[in-house]
Amino acid sequence: MKQHIVSMVLATILCSTLSMAQVQKLPAPSKSLGKNVMEALWNRSSSTEFSDKMLSDQDLSNLLFAAIGVNRPSEGKLTSPTARNFQEIRVFVFTAKGVSEYLNKENALKQMAKGDHRGLIADRQDWAKTAPVSLLIVADEKKFGSSDSKAKVTMGIDAGIVSENINIFCAGAGFVTRPRMTMDTPAIKKLLKLSDAETPLLNNPVGFAK
Amino acid sequence: MKQHIVSMVLATILCSTLSMAQVQKLPAPSKSLGKNVMEALWNRSSSTEFSDKMLSDQDLSNLLFAAIGVNRPSEGKLTSPTARNFQEIRVFVFTAKGVSEYLNKENALKQMAKGDHRGLIADRQDWAKTAPVSLLIVADEKKFGSSDSKAKVTMGIDAGIVSENINIFCAGAGFVTRPRMTMDTPAIKKLLKLSDAETPLLNNPVGFAK
Repeated sequence: MKQHIVSMVLATILCSTLSMAQVQKLPAPSKSLGKNVMEALWNRSSSTEFSDKMLSDQDLSNLLFAAIGVNRPSEGKLTSPTARNFQEIRVFVFTAKGVSEYLNKENALKQMAKGDHRGLIADRQDWAKTAPVSLLIVADEKKFGSSDSKAKVTMGIDAGIVSENINIFCAGAGFVTRPRMTMDTPAIKKLLKLSDAETPLLNNPVGFAK
Repeated sequence: MKQHIVSMVLATILCSTLSMAQVQKLPAPSKSLGKNVMEALWNRSSSTEFSDKMLSDQDLSNLLFAAIGVNRPSEGKLTSPTARNFQEIRVFVFTAKGVSEYLNKENALKQMAKGDHRGLIADRQDWAKTAPVSLLIVADEKKFGSSDSKAKVTMGIDAGIVSENINIFCAGAGFVTRPRMTMDTPAIKKLLKLSDAETPLLNNPVGFAK
């Protein structure tokens, strides 16, 4: 019995050490920040020029909340609506240090890969590698129970909605971005161990203006 | 010669009378209005309950500007990005009085049909008929030069982007809405004389909260 308890305690310590290494809690997203909605809409544009300056953890928290944040915790509902509330969109964060998934319910980053993989997002467009952060938007087709053309359109709609939240947030909060469909999809699927049904649809390189 | 000039003057008067009847210029969209972007994102939600109160022309101008307004007139670029700047999205406005198309370059409404056709948008969901305004988002597949699954996903993305601009505008400017794919598509295509390639993808009933 004593040995059993010791094993359990050791296992718990091991698990929490592992999760501490792999999951980074973000600061809470700001409640109020940026230009008003009409100013942000007037300012909405795409940019391919980024300063080297890295976003702070608070910036990342706000940006990721804009994308797929839980804005009504008691209902588990999101800033970005999805068809029949499927919530089939995953968002990954590429930086010079590694790739993480944004866990919206935990408001945390879960490390998926170490190292700089922004080149997979940029693909043949070098400018996209210069953004300090790239967000990758992946839709899970499994949630639709079909892969017909209506499911494809719907996945596109839900991904577009997430990307536009990023675009409008950037336009209102002092960042620049550009929504893109170009990327090295096979290499990204391999790196992130995505299933066949999980489809990278869009990405948004994000940074401060140059 | 005199007779020719008289005919031309009469034709001009006739044309401008016709266009006065069919095209209604909107007031310029507001430059600054509503909650800030983080507040709007926290407030973003879907609603199915609307007050009877009609939107003013200024409200309509702001709402339609959010959807596909020209925010950089010198470049002809829009609040809502589109794939390769195809600008393949058309937005139609359904009210109790009729159906109009939003002409974004002119910031005007062009009448397409008289009478209350909001039931075609609502289809089997009666709540959607109670919104004073419904916006219909149509994508023109012709612009892609193909109708493969990538074109379908891309059309979905671009339509989702437009809808999310509407959602965020509403969340920030005091309106309620809900993005929907349900509608009576064949009847809408007939009413608006859409081509086979022009596909109604989404609609947004919009109003004040009840």
